[in-house]
Amino acid sequence: MTEAASDRVTAAVLIIGDEILSGRTQDTNLRDIARYLGVLGVDLAEARTVPDEMEEIVAALNALRDRYDYVITTGGIGPTHDDITADAVAQAFGLPLHEHPDIIAMMSAQWPGDALTPARRRMSRVPQGGGLVKNPVQGPPGFKIDNVFVLAGVPSIMRGMLQDVGPHLRGGAVTLSRTVRVQGSGEGVIAAPLEAVARLHPAMSLGSYPFYDAEGYGTNLVLRGRDPAELAATVAELIAAVRAAGVNNVGEIDAA
Amino acid sequence: MTEAASDRVTAAVLIIGDEILSGRTQDTNLRDIARYLGVLGVDLAEARTVPDEMEEIVAALNALRDRYDYVITTGGIGPTHDDITADAVAQAFGLPLHEHPDIIAMMSAQWPGDALTPARRRMSRVPQGGGLVKNPVQGPPGFKIDNVFVLAGVPSIMRGMLQDVGPHLRGGAVTLSRTVRVQGSGEGVIAAPLEAVARLHPAMSLGSYPFYDAEGYGTNLVLRGRDPAELAATVAELIAAVRAAGVNNVGEIDAA
Repeated sequence: MTEAASDRVTAAVLIIGDEILSGRTQDTNLRDIARYLGVLGVDLAEARTVPDEMEEIVAALNALRDRYDYVITTGGIGPTHDDITADAVAQAFGLPLHEHPDIIAMMSAQWPGDALTPARRRMSRVPQGGGLVKNPVQGPPGFKIDNVFVLAGVPSIMRGMLQDVGPHLRGGAVTLSRTVRVQGSGEGVIAAPLEAVARLHPAMSLGSYPFYDAEGYGTNLVLRGRDPAELAATVAELIAAVRAAGVNNVGEIDAA
Repeated sequence: MTEAASDRVTAAVLIIGDEILSGRTQDTNLRDIARYLGVLGVDLAEARTVPDEMEEIVAALNALRDRYDYVITTGGIGPTHDDITADAVAQAFGLPLHEHPDIIAMMSAQWPGDALTPARRRMSRVPQGGGLVKNPVQGPPGFKIDNVFVLAGVPSIMRGMLQDVGPHLRGGAVTLSRTVRVQGSGEGVIAAPLEAVARLHPAMSLGSYPFYDAEGYGTNLVLRGRDPAELAATVAELIAAVRAAGVNNVGEIDAA
């Protein structure tokens, strides 16, 4: 987190949906987007979840798009009355909505004549000047305007749309990650050597994640950074420091 | 969402952790907290996820605790150098941290002598004046200060601590929920009758959730409200309206 601001590319996720805040639905989009951005070297810096309410969406979107390089929203672009994301994005940008002709053309092919109901037509609405985000799964596309990408909430569709987001992002340097596993020792023992190594390498991010699983318990230490040589040196120093603290069951693992 | 503000009790969740924003860990705490609060009649109004960085945590916590009746945080209370939630909460309130004597007593029993390492002692730190949140699972307790509850990030421990949060909350009226399932028809067909019924019952919240599963596809319509009689009437009207739109495979289901 100490690299120069100039080469850091940041993003925020805005999750829109009463179903997440009621606990009815388990969100998985945040993790999928985080991983996708990580591969591109874009730092996901914040996420917010807001209800399907106009002023909440507008306020959160304006706060996030001012502060981060990119914002990705999920949810609220279906055909029903509670799907107000397009309206909220238009309001946030002070732009009118229009029925995008390319979406109308796609929909007319899929739903000829009366099957293109007013509800379905709602899904063609995009703020004036906005472009499309391809949907390779099913249904109409998402859209983008300025630094905001508006994706579906259904996870399989969201993941499909996400593939069309990357090409529009200015990628940062890719962050590399390596994992050191300490078996049979918890964070209380590991904290001191971990902190000592972290202090020597401020450009590296070192995180500690306890686990309790079928193999017993322990701690995974995840090291992230942009310089492969410094990352390798940090891994070696960390393993040595943990051993010096009297913990021998430690080594690097391949954590995908 | 149209009920009088006076009987609405609100909460926000603040998820603290680089591991969520990197996509390494799938958060499940938000859903668990949302469901727990729902049973108590407390509306979860917003959630934010921030990295393990002091100024980010402080800014988000201050924004949320000013705006909502309660804030529940998860994560960042372990023994390692990246666990800075206690420091951030203290800074947000402008209070000093101290080692809470009750936590030191518990820890001294669990980790006698040198086993109570400086790293572990970190977990006894609570802002001056803060109280404890019991931890029935393992490890030290969480804490509470004013309208903020500080819980662990490990889901099993978080769920245990959550049981000690409810007794301290002023419960709102409990929101009731009923679900109408439409089999074989998507939102495009259901949107018009749903909207018509929603307009007649502004005190009810009507949401529409498409599904694609082993039984095929369709849409679940979730009705929520505080008045059981109006809720029952709304369910009946919605089923009638969907049938009037030519969709017959519709009925109430028991959705836990």
